[in-house]
Amino acid sequence: MTVFVDRTSLGRGEPLGTAALAQLFTEARTHNHFRDLPVPDRLLRQALDLAKMGPTAVNQQSLRALFLRSDQAKERLRPALMAGNVEKTMAAPVVAIMGHDVEFYKHLPFLLPHADAGSWFAGDPDFAARSAAQNGTLQVAYFILALRAVGLDAGPMSGFDSPKVEQEFFPDGKIKANVIINIGYGEDAKLYPRSPRLSFEEMATIL
Amino acid sequence: MTVFVDRTSLGRGEPLGTAALAQLFTEARTHNHFRDLPVPDRLLRQALDLAKMGPTAVNQQSLRALFLRSDQAKERLRPALMAGNVEKTMAAPVVAIMGHDVEFYKHLPFLLPHADAGSWFAGDPDFAARSAAQNGTLQVAYFILALRAVGLDAGPMSGFDSPKVEQEFFPDGKIKANVIINIGYGEDAKLYPRSPRLSFEEMATIL
Repeated sequence: MTVFVDRTSLGRGEPLGTAALAQLFTEARTHNHFRDLPVPDRLLRQALDLAKMGPTAVNQQSLRALFLRSDQAKERLRPALMAGNVEKTMAAPVVAIMGHDVEFYKHLPFLLPHADAGSWFAGDPDFAARSAAQNGTLQVAYFILALRAVGLDAGPMSGFDSPKVEQEFFPDGKIKANVIINIGYGEDAKLYPRSPRLSFEEMATIL
Repeated sequence: MTVFVDRTSLGRGEPLGTAALAQLFTEARTHNHFRDLPVPDRLLRQALDLAKMGPTAVNQQSLRALFLRSDQAKERLRPALMAGNVEKTMAAPVVAIMGHDVEFYKHLPFLLPHADAGSWFAGDPDFAARSAAQNGTLQVAYFILALRAVGLDAGPMSGFDSPKVEQEFFPDGKIKANVIINIGYGEDAKLYPRSPRLSFEEMATIL
């Protein structure tokens, strides 16, 4: 696919090169099958440390992650997966349960010291839950692109029973399960053809 | 900040370089003030064309975008903004209203031709709305990072009256307003110091 590169803007405003855009967006794919290669903890940490730099409302960073690496941990997830997602998930080198903390606001005195933003949420659990979901979801996407940025491949999915996952892994009720991501080095040979995309005009208007 | 680079993995699994990681994550910042430089339509298109390649559930691509460039269009947004967001938004070169289409499933016969996924949503408007919000929000984050990838800066915010925005810009009720993003080339001199981040251990556990 053609990638347009702009070299005319000033200062910092340079685009990434075509290879970086390909790794993040244009050639990256959702993977269901992974090569038999280890995924070091160091790369999971690096990807999360990159993702947490992305913007969230009032710097709330509501994302919480459980990385399932052992067979024992993955077996705890099995009963919550949709049938079509079981085999590929059990075989993935690492499985990340991405959730969000509906009591994220308890960290705001540290995360946003110059404002009393915690009080906006502490008395309004519905608002807190909505904001945690919205911003935790932004952070899931930052994390998917951060995995790609450190050279890994991701297989995100929403086909699972969230209450079952929460009961098993987050029994105190404060963390909601949002997206599960299989992580490893993808098997390109097992990819399906890329599905189509909407046109700019179907998605957007300039006023 | 230290960025660990892994050169030991095979084939495609190479990390991006430190400069690219800085542009996307570690040095990128939320901007409230922009330089007096034009933002070409071409870069808005390129950023959206990159963002739409990111993964969504059943390839739904529920994100919809309105780019407000004219003063007239921005004035229509003014009454819906929280007081603290008015001035910076009216001054931004481009203001993007990011929404999601709760009837995204009408496109699924084209977007996911090998499955009848549309029927999962067509009879369940609550499920469709939740899925549109979750996946539209993932796409907002892909778009924020895509703006940075093409050399632009972003100032995302959720401080606005969504029903007012919807009434003014999406009166048919099918598109929900999610996040507003001011777009341009940021004024580094007007940045606040970077706010703190949670540690890996506060966000994540490896099992």
